[in-house]
Amino acid sequence: MSVADLTTDQQSLTTSSSLGENQDFAWLMRGTHEIFPDQKDSDNPDENLVQRLLKSDRPLRVKLGIDPTGADIHLGHSIPVRKLRAFQDAGHTAVLIIGDFTARIGDPTGKSDVRRQLTEADVHANAQTYLNQVRPILDFDTPGRLEVRYNSEWLSKLDLSKILELLTTMTVGQMLAKEGFAERYEKGNPVYLHEFLYPLMQGYDSVAVESDVELGGTDQKFNIAVGRDLQRHFGARPQFGLLLPILLGTDGVQKMSKSLGNYVALTEDPLTMYSKLEKTPDHLLKDYFELLTPLPLESLPENPRDRQKCLAMEVVSQYHGEAAAKQAQEAAMALVQGTGTAQQAVVPEFSLADIQFPAKLFFIVSASGLCKSSSDARRQIQGGAVKLDGERIDQVDLTFENAEVLHGRTLSVGTKRFVRLVR
Amino acid sequence: MSVADLTTDQQSLTTSSSLGENQDFAWLMRGTHEIFPDQKDSDNPDENLVQRLLKSDRPLRVKLGIDPTGADIHLGHSIPVRKLRAFQDAGHTAVLIIGDFTARIGDPTGKSDVRRQLTEADVHANAQTYLNQVRPILDFDTPGRLEVRYNSEWLSKLDLSKILELLTTMTVGQMLAKEGFAERYEKGNPVYLHEFLYPLMQGYDSVAVESDVELGGTDQKFNIAVGRDLQRHFGARPQFGLLLPILLGTDGVQKMSKSLGNYVALTEDPLTMYSKLEKTPDHLLKDYFELLTPLPLESLPENPRDRQKCLAMEVVSQYHGEAAAKQAQEAAMALVQGTGTAQQAVVPEFSLADIQFPAKLFFIVSASGLCKSSSDARRQIQGGAVKLDGERIDQVDLTFENAEVLHGRTLSVGTKRFVRLVR
Repeated sequence: MSVADLTTDQQSLTTSSSLGENQDFAWLMRGTHEIFPDQKDSDNPDENLVQRLLKSDRPLRVKLGIDPTGADIHLGHSIPVRKLRAFQDAGHTAVLIIGDFTARIGDPTGKSDVRRQLTEADVHANAQTYLNQVRPILDFDTPGRLEVRYNSEWLSKLDLSKILELLTTMTVGQMLAKEGFAERYEKGNPVYLHEFLYPLMQGYDSVAVESDVELGGTDQKFNIAVGRDLQRHFGARPQFGLLLPILLGTDGVQKMSKSLGNYVALTEDPLTMYSKLEKTPDHLLKDYFELLTPLPLESLPENPRDRQKCLAMEVVSQYHGEAAAKQAQEAAMALVQGTGTAQQAVVPEFSLADIQFPAKLFFIVSASGLCKSSSDARRQIQGGAVKLDGERIDQVDLTFENAEVLHGRTLSVGTKRFVRLVR
Repeated sequence: MSVADLTTDQQSLTTSSSLGENQDFAWLMRGTHEIFPDQKDSDNPDENLVQRLLKSDRPLRVKLGIDPTGADIHLGHSIPVRKLRAFQDAGHTAVLIIGDFTARIGDPTGKSDVRRQLTEADVHANAQTYLNQVRPILDFDTPGRLEVRYNSEWLSKLDLSKILELLTTMTVGQMLAKEGFAERYEKGNPVYLHEFLYPLMQGYDSVAVESDVELGGTDQKFNIAVGRDLQRHFGARPQFGLLLPILLGTDGVQKMSKSLGNYVALTEDPLTMYSKLEKTPDHLLKDYFELLTPLPLESLPENPRDRQKCLAMEVVSQYHGEAAAKQAQEAAMALVQGTGTAQQAVVPEFSLADIQFPAKLFFIVSASGLCKSSSDARRQIQGGAVKLDGERIDQVDLTFENAEVLHGRTLSVGTKRFVRLVR
């Protein structure tokens, strides 16, 4: 199984699912947890998504909302994006909604770190970072296949009478039934009134972009259903919700999350990514293949170790290309067989012997050849592209006292340039 | 006890309560159910309204909100308006808020008749009707004593980020603790989300007009407290709340209400008003005197019958002048003593003998001399000033088939011109 297979497989999806009769909707159902409403036997395109796909005489508009908080995205986040790509390949329009309006307000109570207030420039930079990260997944090039929208476009224009109208569509009881609110309210923990507006704002995004289908994790069912209600309220055809599973992390226990350390980020270097994925616990392999690759599940390698390798090769190939994936695999094998260290095998070394300490980071970045000048290095640091052992460094003037503290650490710029520092 | 006393008493209130030290705040406390916050011993003008009145170097801004729904207002509604007048007489500014914003939206769910949607023209006409009705109570003439504001001035400018900010100031639990919401929620009756915005909108009115004191019935405590919270949130000095009792109706049992028929409207003719008030049940007399007149409670007539008459005279004098009140009293006495009928005694008769039937109402109004021309009569009907037996007639082309249907009925234009129709 290789990148060649991957490409072929994606190709075949494209071909088999162009608009028309007698389609194979395997691409739609793969890894899908739930589609709602789901009247599978109905011929009514308002009740049956397959019927809507078959009977539509125009590309459907498929919505995915993202928070422009600037976080690294990981394989868990990639799942709805991959489904969005499948819709694109079937001829539909991916509508990516950048939630800039809420990000720019932040959490007005100031109680939540998650919702810290961002400037317009922050939001746009973060959106760009997001788009860069999902570039290997989505089709950015075919005309009409991707629409990127900022929700401040419509939310900033809402006035009080429109907002009152949005609020009339729901009762307090319905809102308090939402997961998250219910428990807090029962326990006597405060639920602030403005929190009730967020699901309605997300729902109004569906009205504004005329969404036919909204993708999301299983935790998004309530919000997507609010979107349906609002569309109906405003006389539009309600969207379908397509829910995707929340991915378990590489520990095989908890959901993939940066804070739990059980994640694989899309921007990780090939060897790191490969090494994490080739240890994927047995019981996760089926889900990972189904959700993260297009490989046919019935023809996977029989040997569990081979399945792990196959998964790692496939995923690394998606983000770094087949050559880098093969190189990472070889390095990892060398490491396992004791014929070298991972770093030696794929990561070039840079000796700090000629550097005068104390030394500024940007100078080391430049001297190592990762950037072509000190000023370029400064820019890369400011842009958040420079990492030490995978941790982003954003202090331009960071200074190191001696070579010892850097020995053995990996310095990288972007996802493809890295050196291992040696004293 | 007469109108002369009334005038003297108001005069003395004015004199004794001009801004300065050593004031007598009897006018403030009279009939007042509660002032909050109420730290009576405090010297801090933020905790003690009397201190704020004493220490302020400018007139205070005293807010009263009204719904421009066009309803006839009755003596129950007059209570906070009378208190507003007392503040005016003490040198302060009455700020009447016309709630046009919400009236123009109506109840977006369409479920409530109370909140039917009104046009801008409706709202302005209704506001004018309201002002006409309270004209006998308030000081419209002294410069700086009255400010009439429409809340669409600021509410129509609120955008989503400002509304989110308003919503952050309260929790769901706090809102559900409000009388009216709590019971409905407990019983499983729907409470719609937009209903949570109304108290915040009323509260934001206080921010917008920089209110120092808000007047209202005891049922307004929650909303006035929301205004305090919002003012504090926006860095302004929080207002005081001054709560006034809800008046019981002339039946002595239920609160005064048009729908219960136990009311005295401010626009009723002198005899009707007098006749209702001179039957005021004994146990209501103290409240009615305290809330509806400025008379000293310790020097009321001892005989209960005299007290009823005194009350009726006082109140009718306020709205129709002393002469009309005396005439009404005489007519009522004649009626009781069997020396005449009420209508004969005070209401001039108009004979329909010369009218050709079927006849249009506006023609009869004009022919009776109540209006100086048919076109004037049409205008008065359109303006809602024409009543038959106290019921407003607003069909300009209303036609009567014969004199029989009109015999014995009272036709009036405004509050001071009326005739009794005889065939």
